[in-house]
Amino acid sequence: MATTGHTVKAFDQDLDELRATIAEMGGLAEEAIREAMRALVQRDSEGALRVVEADRRIDALETELERAAVQLIALRAPMADDLREVIAALKIASVVERIGDYAKNIAKRVQVIGEAPVIEPLSLLPEMARIAGEMVHSVLDAFAARDAEKALAVCERDRAVDDFYNSIFRTLLTFMMENPHNITPATHLLFVAKNLERIGDHATNAAEMVYFAATGLHVADRPRGAATETVGSDG
Amino acid sequence: MATTGHTVKAFDQDLDELRATIAEMGGLAEEAIREAMRALVQRDSEGALRVVEADRRIDALETELERAAVQLIALRAPMADDLREVIAALKIASVVERIGDYAKNIAKRVQVIGEAPVIEPLSLLPEMARIAGEMVHSVLDAFAARDAEKALAVCERDRAVDDFYNSIFRTLLTFMMENPHNITPATHLLFVAKNLERIGDHATNAAEMVYFAATGLHVADRPRGAATETVGSDG
Repeated sequence: MATTGHTVKAFDQDLDELRATIAEMGGLAEEAIREAMRALVQRDSEGALRVVEADRRIDALETELERAAVQLIALRAPMADDLREVIAALKIASVVERIGDYAKNIAKRVQVIGEAPVIEPLSLLPEMARIAGEMVHSVLDAFAARDAEKALAVCERDRAVDDFYNSIFRTLLTFMMENPHNITPATHLLFVAKNLERIGDHATNAAEMVYFAATGLHVADRPRGAATETVGSDG
Repeated sequence: MATTGHTVKAFDQDLDELRATIAEMGGLAEEAIREAMRALVQRDSEGALRVVEADRRIDALETELERAAVQLIALRAPMADDLREVIAALKIASVVERIGDYAKNIAKRVQVIGEAPVIEPLSLLPEMARIAGEMVHSVLDAFAARDAEKALAVCERDRAVDDFYNSIFRTLLTFMMENPHNITPATHLLFVAKNLERIGDHATNAAEMVYFAATGLHVADRPRGAATETVGSDG
């Protein structure tokens, strides 16, 4: 969205503060994903607990941002375009908060898994998490820079996350079929994969918002694929 | 929240329109849950497809509500309390939209399941869905009436949904262990159960917002239970 010609510099400053809060939330969400996966791989229940607890900070920042946004609107009475920027900030913050929740879910799962036997697809999951984390990072960069191209690149990256999900899903099913002892741990990993896939989806949603804000256009219905949806997609 | 003493009746009318849109979204979301579960039980792929398509209407209503809210704020420049009501409406609409997505996910899953063999927990799922659907209905009633007690009752109902989820989760695991042929259909039903559990969570989130709006107090940390979190909870 082009910068509107409002003269009230104070509004821009307030908006910058909202953006800074979102950047902080995003950094925490990225770290949560990274730490949850590290805890999963290393069977670190205490590390997982720290991720669960750290999520409160993300929630608190969202509440803070919401209060600031309401105050900004009340004080500055921004016109339509500026108002839309504030609403966009509220929406992006809500997406980041949800991404934090998914990372927290993974951390909770680590605590549930405990000492269950390690099964192979554990090696694919961190790679999937790395891509999902990168998407979160990139979409926040795109938001800060109002960079439509970068936002679009995030949307395209989601395909890779979906491919990982499908591959992990199928692999886990075969593990379950081979040996009933694998069923419980494989089910937990399936939910971890699902949480990562949802992180990718939410980063994509945020990217679509950034794209729309920057261009006024909706990202054309992307080919997200029959392939995805034939195997356990919840997208 | 007590009605503030603003004299501009037009604001109240506009707010009522936002509420009517949310009520419409809620009705569609409830129907989507009901129809997705009917399609699941009756193996009705075409019915499931209709649920997936109908979700667009919910999404469109949310977009419409957002536009109306922005316009309302820009035109009426509401003061703090009224503004908070508008923001609350935006947030509840976003929750209802997500509930619609979960129902859509169930419907997509029906299409994936196709002709796979029926396994027993299918009989528990519709009951779980009924409770989740009731929660959605009640929370929207509570929102319309600003009824804090009713909102609290929704929060408490979530315990039953979580119990259903845990029971279904364990039952499905035993089915998978008994017979590898059950693994694929059981995995799909596990995701259906998970989607219903998430619907309960979101209805609860909305109820907490309604409670806060009505009383200014946060719902005290409810005892959502160690029991829940020891078995595959993603809450």
